[in-house]
Amino acid sequence: MKTAPALNHLEIKLTLPDWVRPFLKKNSPCSTDEEKMRLAVALARENVLRGTGGPVGAAVFRDPGPELLAVGVNGVERLGNSVAHAEMVAIMLAEQGQGSYTLRIPAGPKTALFTTCEPCAMCLGAVLWSGLTRLVCGAPREAALALGFEEGPVFPESYRYLEDRGVEIVRGVLAGEARAVLRLYQERSEGIYNG
Amino acid sequence: MKTAPALNHLEIKLTLPDWVRPFLKKNSPCSTDEEKMRLAVALARENVLRGTGGPVGAAVFRDPGPELLAVGVNGVERLGNSVAHAEMVAIMLAEQGQGSYTLRIPAGPKTALFTTCEPCAMCLGAVLWSGLTRLVCGAPREAALALGFEEGPVFPESYRYLEDRGVEIVRGVLAGEARAVLRLYQERSEGIYNG
Repeated sequence: MKTAPALNHLEIKLTLPDWVRPFLKKNSPCSTDEEKMRLAVALARENVLRGTGGPVGAAVFRDPGPELLAVGVNGVERLGNSVAHAEMVAIMLAEQGQGSYTLRIPAGPKTALFTTCEPCAMCLGAVLWSGLTRLVCGAPREAALALGFEEGPVFPESYRYLEDRGVEIVRGVLAGEARAVLRLYQERSEGIYNG
Repeated sequence: MKTAPALNHLEIKLTLPDWVRPFLKKNSPCSTDEEKMRLAVALARENVLRGTGGPVGAAVFRDPGPELLAVGVNGVERLGNSVAHAEMVAIMLAEQGQGSYTLRIPAGPKTALFTTCEPCAMCLGAVLWSGLTRLVCGAPREAALALGFEEGPVFPESYRYLEDRGVEIVRGVLAGEARAVLRLYQERSEGIYNG
């Protein structure tokens, strides 16, 4: 079998841009859903302004409470990796920080993912696997679709499926601000990368 | 904001086990769907026997043709990462090898993903993002569910959604052999990790 040299490279590395660091050191605690979503929106906006990726930001917090476990921003183009959605990066970093493939600890503290846009099919599936117990969304799927983003096979029953398995879903938190970042990206970009 | 030390670690690393290497150097070309699926099944079986992960293997090939672009095996427990399904790893490594977040090149060669079990919701979404043009599956979703695996919100219309967007889907290739690896895992494991 003829193999390209790259075939023998058995490692994938995903990184967040360095500009993210100050967001992680923020002293003001986020305690309400709006405050937590504001952090995710700020990450999304910065990602667009710095040109490091698409217009979505995400953050995983203990739920309830102010403890931030991880953040993510879309890095698909920067990393050459179609999996590197904000939500996926935040989930993987949160698990890494906890040292486990699941964030769900029996009788332990719960966790919530804040994302500035309703997740695509991949990210919604990942939420289920991650053991997150709450998913909080900003802009609706329709806002992303309207800008030419593909969102994948997500149906009303997809959300019900997660709810039936113990994932609480909250939608429309800071939707206007989250949608504004989608628009900002469209204005600044030559095209939607996956349009 | 109080942050755990791990919060400042901005990198995720995903690796395949070293035992995968001989599979990548195989001299005998795989040209039929059955031959390509046999490689994926062999990877899945080896992953179970070596205790390096769950009972699913995957491989990305040029389509048609014998060129192998990447392989993947489930590494969820080993890596402490719920995203590290065989399909996700294979997709990310294939993109890395091609140096692009999409495997779809206008007027260029096409690519197919071979997976020993019908993908979960996350992996099915990832197929769409990756630009793969064909998805070839071994064991049916029901075989995984019957063993206690969770598969997430995948519906008949999920497959139609992908087909409508140019992804050809083939099911049931070496289903018996792929299912046998699922059973082998169950026999050898104390429990299904996400049951």
